[in-house]
Amino acid sequence: MRVAEPPAPALVAFIDAVGPIEAEAAVRAAEVPPRVLAETAARRHLDLAAGDIADAERVGARLVVPEDDEWPAWPLLSLAAASDRGQRWAGSAVGLWAKGTARLGDSVDRAVSIVGSRSATGYGEFVASDLAHTMALAGTTIVSGAAYGIDGAAHRGALAADGVTIAVLGCGIDVGYPAGHADLLKRITPRGLVLSEYPPGTPPARYRFLVRNRLIAALSSGTVVVEAGIRSGARNTATTAAALGKVVLAVPGPITSAQSAGCHDLLRTGGAILAGSVSEVLEAVSPVGEHLADRPESPTRRTDGLGTEALRVHEALRRRAARTPAQVAVDSGVSIDRVRALLPELELTGLAERCEEGWRQAPKP
Amino acid sequence: MRVAEPPAPALVAFIDAVGPIEAEAAVRAAEVPPRVLAETAARRHLDLAAGDIADAERVGARLVVPEDDEWPAWPLLSLAAASDRGQRWAGSAVGLWAKGTARLGDSVDRAVSIVGSRSATGYGEFVASDLAHTMALAGTTIVSGAAYGIDGAAHRGALAADGVTIAVLGCGIDVGYPAGHADLLKRITPRGLVLSEYPPGTPPARYRFLVRNRLIAALSSGTVVVEAGIRSGARNTATTAAALGKVVLAVPGPITSAQSAGCHDLLRTGGAILAGSVSEVLEAVSPVGEHLADRPESPTRRTDGLGTEALRVHEALRRRAARTPAQVAVDSGVSIDRVRALLPELELTGLAERCEEGWRQAPKP
Repeated sequence: MRVAEPPAPALVAFIDAVGPIEAEAAVRAAEVPPRVLAETAARRHLDLAAGDIADAERVGARLVVPEDDEWPAWPLLSLAAASDRGQRWAGSAVGLWAKGTARLGDSVDRAVSIVGSRSATGYGEFVASDLAHTMALAGTTIVSGAAYGIDGAAHRGALAADGVTIAVLGCGIDVGYPAGHADLLKRITPRGLVLSEYPPGTPPARYRFLVRNRLIAALSSGTVVVEAGIRSGARNTATTAAALGKVVLAVPGPITSAQSAGCHDLLRTGGAILAGSVSEVLEAVSPVGEHLADRPESPTRRTDGLGTEALRVHEALRRRAARTPAQVAVDSGVSIDRVRALLPELELTGLAERCEEGWRQAPKP
Repeated sequence: MRVAEPPAPALVAFIDAVGPIEAEAAVRAAEVPPRVLAETAARRHLDLAAGDIADAERVGARLVVPEDDEWPAWPLLSLAAASDRGQRWAGSAVGLWAKGTARLGDSVDRAVSIVGSRSATGYGEFVASDLAHTMALAGTTIVSGAAYGIDGAAHRGALAADGVTIAVLGCGIDVGYPAGHADLLKRITPRGLVLSEYPPGTPPARYRFLVRNRLIAALSSGTVVVEAGIRSGARNTATTAAALGKVVLAVPGPITSAQSAGCHDLLRTGGAILAGSVSEVLEAVSPVGEHLADRPESPTRRTDGLGTEALRVHEALRRRAARTPAQVAVDSGVSIDRVRALLPELELTGLAERCEEGWRQAPKP
C-alpha cells in the first residue's frame, strides 16, 4: 500500500496473481512486469509497514485486505472489471484501513451512496439528511465522503436513525480531514465505518478525492447526487458510478439554484434518474421487484370514471335549481335520449337526484 | 358553433367538406351523417348567430373562421390529425372568438405555452414569469389559460416585456372568468389576444377547461409545465401536447414541494424534457439548429488539461517550500524519470517554477 499511489490496477492484479509476500519481494527487487514497475518505480523502496500499522492502531483502525472475511470482494470487482476495460481511473484497492465496529463486507450488502456539493443549500442538506435517515431506518447503509455540506448531512441523517454509515476518506485515516468533521467521524465509528485506502499520514489532495470517489461508487448499489454544481466532485462520482454500471439518481431542485445545476444537467442528459422520494431511490437501487415505489397518489373526485357525456350532463345540472332533461340536453350538448339514459345512471352513483321539477346535482355525502 | 359542444370533430369535418352555408342547412334539417347527427342532436335547432355576434362586438371581439387569413390552419391541423387517429378529445374548432389587436395566425408562428398550477408557489410564479418575459423579449408568443397562479404569471411576464401573449379561455369571451383576472385580460388585448371557441355567455365548466387545453397545446410548438400537482390540468395539457407530437418540457423544483410533484413525475416517466433555463426551452421548441442552448458554463481551473501524472506532480509541489524531484517522485508516486520530464512541462504552462533548492508551485497570475 506504500509502494504505489492508488489506483494501481497492475499492482493489484499482480498481488492477486502471486500473493502478497512474493509480490512484495518482487516489487522491492524491481522484478515485476513493466506496468507494475511503472506504478511502483517511485516508491518501491518505501517500507513503512510496521509504522503504518502502529499509527493505525493508535487511532483504533485496522487493516482489511482481500484475505479477510470482511473484504468487500464482490462490490470491488466492478472496479477491477472497469480497469480491464481500460478505464484508467478504475482498479480495486490493495487494502483498506478501517475504523469502526461494523464489518465492511456485510455493511455494503445493501448500501446507497449520497453525495453532493460542499457548498450545499439548506434545502440540499435537508434532503440529504432526510433521504439518509429514512433509508437507514429501512436497513440501508449510507456511504459518503465526509465532506462538508451534502456528505455530512447524509452521514448525520443515518446516525440520527441509529443506522450504519460509511465515510470513505481521500487522506490517511488518522489525518482528521476536514477538521470541522472530526466529531462527526468519531460519531460514525460506534456503528459504522471510516475507510481509507491511503496509508496513515497521507495528506488530502484534489486528485485523491477523485480517486476516492471510485470507492464510494463501487461500495454502493446506487449513487444519489443531491446537489451539485456544473463542475463538482459529486458529478465525478456520478460518472464513475455510471461507468461501473451502478444506478445513478439526481435530486432536482429550483432552477434558480446553482447548486442544483449539476443535478439538472445529469437529468437532462440522461445521466441520472430523477430521485423525487426515498421510495423512488429504493426502487431504483433494489433488486427488481423489491421496494416498488408507489406511484405518487392522485387525489380523486367523485366524478372520476364518468364518460365525457356523463360528465357534461353532470356539470349541466345545478346544485339547487332543478333542470329538465330538455334543458340539460341543450346546456350539455348531449342528445335528449342520452340525457334521459344518463340521468338515472348518475342517480345510481349518487351524483344526481330527482326532484319535483326535474333533476339536480346530489349533495356530496 | 352553437349547435355542438366542442370538440365536435365530425361537424368540423362536415363543414370543411360541404361549406358552412350548406352545413348549416343540413344540420338544421338533421340531414347529416350519423356522427354529425350525434354531435348536433341536442342543439341543432339553436340559432343565436345574430345575438352572439352582437354580444361579441359589444366586448370588442371578432369571429375568426377557417376562411379568414388569420386562421391558424397549420397549428390546428394537428388536432384534426389526432382526431382522425381516434383521439376522442381532439378535433379542431369550428371557429374562434378573438379579442385583441394581434393577428392570430402570425402570432402563433413562434409560440410556446406555459402552464401550471393555480395554487402555485412564489418560486413557480417567479419562474413562469421569468421564462415568459425572456422568451417574449426574444419574439416568442406566450400562450396560456388565464388561470390564477402559473398561467397568470406567464401572461404577466410576457406583458412586462411588451410581448405578445394569448389567453385561451374555457368559457365565453365575454364571461370574465376568473373574476380576479379581468384586469389582466384587459391588459392582454392591446398587443395580444384573448381567444375562445365557446359562444358568448357560455359559463366555465371543468370539462371545458380540459377541452380548451387542446387549443393551448395545438397553438404552440412546445408546452412548458412550470408547477403541477400529481393531478392537474397542466398535466392534461402536457399529455395532450405530447399526443399532438409537440415538445413538452417540465421545470423541476424542490422535491419537498407538492406543486412540483407532477413535473417530477413527468420527468421520471419520460413525459417531459427538463427545462432548466430559457435557452434550454428555446432550443427544444425551435427548428433544429436554431437557438442552440449553451451547455451550462463550467468553471475552469488552470490545471485543466493536465494528465493524471502531471496533476499528481503539481499537487506534490508546495506553494513556498522547494521540493527536489526525488521528493516529488515519492510524494506523487510518479517515477523520477517522469517527474524530471513533467516539471519543465509544468514550468512552460506557468504551473511550476524552479528555485535554488528545487521546484515549487508557481503563484497564480
